[in-house]
Amino acid sequence: MNGRVYKNWLAPWRYDLKLSPSSWAGDFSAGLVVTLMLIPQSLAYALLAGLPAHLGLYASVLPLLGYALFGRSPALAVGPVAIASVMTFNALQSFASPASPEWIAGAIFLALASGAILFLAGLLRLGFLAALLSHPVMSGFISGASVVIILGQLQTLLGFSLQGGSVAIQASSLLQSLDSVHLPTLGVGLVSVALLLLARRYASRTFALFGLRGLLHELLTKASPLLVIGFMALSLWVLELSGQVATVGAVPSGLPGLSFALPYASGMTALLGSALLIALVGFVESVSMARTIGRRCGVVTDPNAELRGLGAANILSGASGAFPVTGGLSRSVVNLEAGARSPMAGVISAAFMIIVLLGFADMLSSIPLASLAALIVISVASLFDGRVFLDALRFDRADALGWLATFSGVLVFGVEQGIAIGVTLSVANVLWRQSRPHMAVIGRLSGTEHFRNVQRHNVETLKNVVFVRVDANLFFGNWDYIANFLEGQARTLTSGGVLVLNLSSVSDIDTTAIEGLEALSEKLKSEGARLVFAELKGPITDKLLRSHFFKESTVYLSCHQAFEALRQPS
Amino acid sequence: MNGRVYKNWLAPWRYDLKLSPSSWAGDFSAGLVVTLMLIPQSLAYALLAGLPAHLGLYASVLPLLGYALFGRSPALAVGPVAIASVMTFNALQSFASPASPEWIAGAIFLALASGAILFLAGLLRLGFLAALLSHPVMSGFISGASVVIILGQLQTLLGFSLQGGSVAIQASSLLQSLDSVHLPTLGVGLVSVALLLLARRYASRTFALFGLRGLLHELLTKASPLLVIGFMALSLWVLELSGQVATVGAVPSGLPGLSFALPYASGMTALLGSALLIALVGFVESVSMARTIGRRCGVVTDPNAELRGLGAANILSGASGAFPVTGGLSRSVVNLEAGARSPMAGVISAAFMIIVLLGFADMLSSIPLASLAALIVISVASLFDGRVFLDALRFDRADALGWLATFSGVLVFGVEQGIAIGVTLSVANVLWRQSRPHMAVIGRLSGTEHFRNVQRHNVETLKNVVFVRVDANLFFGNWDYIANFLEGQARTLTSGGVLVLNLSSVSDIDTTAIEGLEALSEKLKSEGARLVFAELKGPITDKLLRSHFFKESTVYLSCHQAFEALRQPS
Repeated sequence: MNGRVYKNWLAPWRYDLKLSPSSWAGDFSAGLVVTLMLIPQSLAYALLAGLPAHLGLYASVLPLLGYALFGRSPALAVGPVAIASVMTFNALQSFASPASPEWIAGAIFLALASGAILFLAGLLRLGFLAALLSHPVMSGFISGASVVIILGQLQTLLGFSLQGGSVAIQASSLLQSLDSVHLPTLGVGLVSVALLLLARRYASRTFALFGLRGLLHELLTKASPLLVIGFMALSLWVLELSGQVATVGAVPSGLPGLSFALPYASGMTALLGSALLIALVGFVESVSMARTIGRRCGVVTDPNAELRGLGAANILSGASGAFPVTGGLSRSVVNLEAGARSPMAGVISAAFMIIVLLGFADMLSSIPLASLAALIVISVASLFDGRVFLDALRFDRADALGWLATFSGVLVFGVEQGIAIGVTLSVANVLWRQSRPHMAVIGRLSGTEHFRNVQRHNVETLKNVVFVRVDANLFFGNWDYIANFLEGQARTLTSGGVLVLNLSSVSDIDTTAIEGLEALSEKLKSEGARLVFAELKGPITDKLLRSHFFKESTVYLSCHQAFEALRQPS
Repeated sequence: MNGRVYKNWLAPWRYDLKLSPSSWAGDFSAGLVVTLMLIPQSLAYALLAGLPAHLGLYASVLPLLGYALFGRSPALAVGPVAIASVMTFNALQSFASPASPEWIAGAIFLALASGAILFLAGLLRLGFLAALLSHPVMSGFISGASVVIILGQLQTLLGFSLQGGSVAIQASSLLQSLDSVHLPTLGVGLVSVALLLLARRYASRTFALFGLRGLLHELLTKASPLLVIGFMALSLWVLELSGQVATVGAVPSGLPGLSFALPYASGMTALLGSALLIALVGFVESVSMARTIGRRCGVVTDPNAELRGLGAANILSGASGAFPVTGGLSRSVVNLEAGARSPMAGVISAAFMIIVLLGFADMLSSIPLASLAALIVISVASLFDGRVFLDALRFDRADALGWLATFSGVLVFGVEQGIAIGVTLSVANVLWRQSRPHMAVIGRLSGTEHFRNVQRHNVETLKNVVFVRVDANLFFGNWDYIANFLEGQARTLTSGGVLVLNLSSVSDIDTTAIEGLEALSEKLKSEGARLVFAELKGPITDKLLRSHFFKESTVYLSCHQAFEALRQPS
């Protein structure tokens, strides 16, 4: 280990990474590789959000710096992503018409508002709310959204203007307009799809055949989508077809101006709900990616730091006049594999993007839109993940149901309704999980002081004495279930019997449960039996002592002690 | 114990109560007492819902039978209640004008829809969703709603027509109309309030002074609000003021017709959200009352049975042409104290209510509305419970915040917005609770095999060995928190050190946590230390065995065994 303990200069109060000089090189090359992917993707995702393409470039400069200042993941690549863009498009549909000044103002509002929500949530340490969307539900949502996106892009590929709405609406508008297909556009789209697929499959090998190695090989491989799109633009110019198909058009040269003023248009506050959903989805997507990265790098992921990082990124995106951003899946994977080990990689990316904006903006204007649509279709197709559903079917039916309901919800009712269904199911899952704590009737392993589940181990038990262990804190949300179990066990006792409650796993207890224990104790007493306690922790004892019945109850230090005391005929 | 095990004939598959002949008498007298309270309350709460008063009587017959067939609580008194009525009024405000045919159809729709939601939730065993509203949040909501109701009733007392909306709107409309106060109405209202307060305070003593004892004394005491209201009606007739103030008006004699047809009017589906909220609040209110009753009677409360009972009650209320009902707080307390020990008490109440409808409907028509408004104000004032807030302030800040936010939400934004805030806060509370499991560094109690928290007990520890116990199932929702704690402990180890993870409280573990343990194990290994396990349960071992790293890990049966094995210099 040549590394040294290193405080990142960007955010010295946050980092504690061991970096070697080679990791600086990793950050640099990863930043460059990510920029080459980011150029075509950011243009494409701006179009997906119904915005002028150059806003995608604007969303790829300051937001990366914002994340680097406040975020913590060593390789999360922040910027425009497909899911946030399609959510932006959907949110703005009932508000304005695509690419109008109101539409752009709405997108800026969504970025500023979701940024503010995320940053505030980070300050309030609400990172635990990531549990609002479980992994299978999130996978179902992304899979559904990928179908919606692809259907939408088919319209661009066929030369129609983009329609929104549910899958049924999109599919029917697609079918109705089939006779008005614009053939040059379709041709450009199909050739682009074919070339992109070929590049994905053979680019790495081909460049290797030409004897390329190391960084240059990697750069060219990851730049292959950019090369394909550049090639398409060049071909159209050579074949004198430039006027026939829609292109990106004039890209203003120079850096975006900064404005922190909240744009205003009537009805804009109605977008707040959408901003909340975009923030939630973006956060959950990013934090799950950040966790994967963190595990690979041996770094603990702090969801609250991710919230602050994503919040800063979105506020700066809005201030740049652009739209909501978040951590991208594919670019993050590439970033990590290309050697990124700190948010410095994002700063490098932003620096290269500034060079592109200052020096190469003109070159982007002749990129055909159909090629970008082809890129979106290819990128998004890999987001569909039916394997999560099939795995869940085998291991956990509830997870499978969550995936399917969210996926179908997106297709049938729409993107926002789908995520609402997903949140509902995820919350129900958590509530259900904590309403059914694990409990076991336990007995003593012969010759030891250890107590184990009577159903799993061959253990000693005592006649008319039942030992029960509850493995959860007792509170209003699970007390009914626990009470049912304890009463069932109490019914097996006759007069003189003892119910021993092992609370070794219990570290908190609320009023509902204390009152319930009292009722149980009195019921047992009325039948000539007793409720006693074993292995109580300090805070539980303190709370129970406020209750009158507990002062008269027997408390044993351990189940072993209780076993010895109760084995003599009392 | 003279009781015998008794299967209730109403629902033989549900009951297992020990009843003595005296409990039959208890059910009978409780049923009668509750009817005497129910007559004026049901008329008043129908008015509170903006409906003709006699619909309150209709909501007090079949719903009680429906609950008796499917519900389980020995003393929950179902019928019209203030909270459900004010929620009905609020829900219908944007839909129709009070007492219009559309308004009544909307109320029927709300009853049928919330009934169907509740019954279905019961069949799907969704009773655990009671955790959607924590106790302090529910108390804050009810306290806020009581303020809203009282402000609304002040308008009736002053002789205005009822206005809805937020507290600010109500208060301002009240102030604006102060110059048009209707003095006779105000007089009737104030006298009614005074008499009702006097009756509550002195009725019991006064009847005792007259030598009344036992059932008759109790009946007259509980009938005192009815007697006050009857006295007011009689006085108006005697003083020939009947034409001066608004009265209940014609009450149709006879029983309600039955119709299960869903009424239809455009925009009615927009009421579904309100029906869901009414169902949720009614359920949480009832199940918490049922729990209190269950504790007193030594009966376990099954939230799913309560869902089915309340669902049946609401469906039958809608079918009777009436509005949403639920378990009432004050009547349930009276029911329990008057001796109700099975849902038979509700059947008795329904029978008496039928007698009232068939024989005494005419007598109710001259009751002044101002007297009913006075009754509402007096009843609802006791729902305000600031003590919960003050207690929470001392014991649990988060609970206090939940109370205050919900209470203010109801006052500032309205009833439905208030409950939405409450649900959000309750869910956040549960998610937060499960995201921060209890963990402890443990050591051995000298001379025993027991391990306890090093911060609470004087225990033996080993150099460069840390024992950690985690008291929760490991899953994506709490893994970050656990990983942070474990990494913090791992940092205290030097080369050759051992981190012993006691998983005795862990009965489930998901993929996120397994992968996290693997990452931790590898990180420790890279630093020359080790992660070992102790006290694993069967299902955890099974799941971990799918993971490669675990097969190479050391697993000890107990912490004691690990302690003995690791104390020798390795």
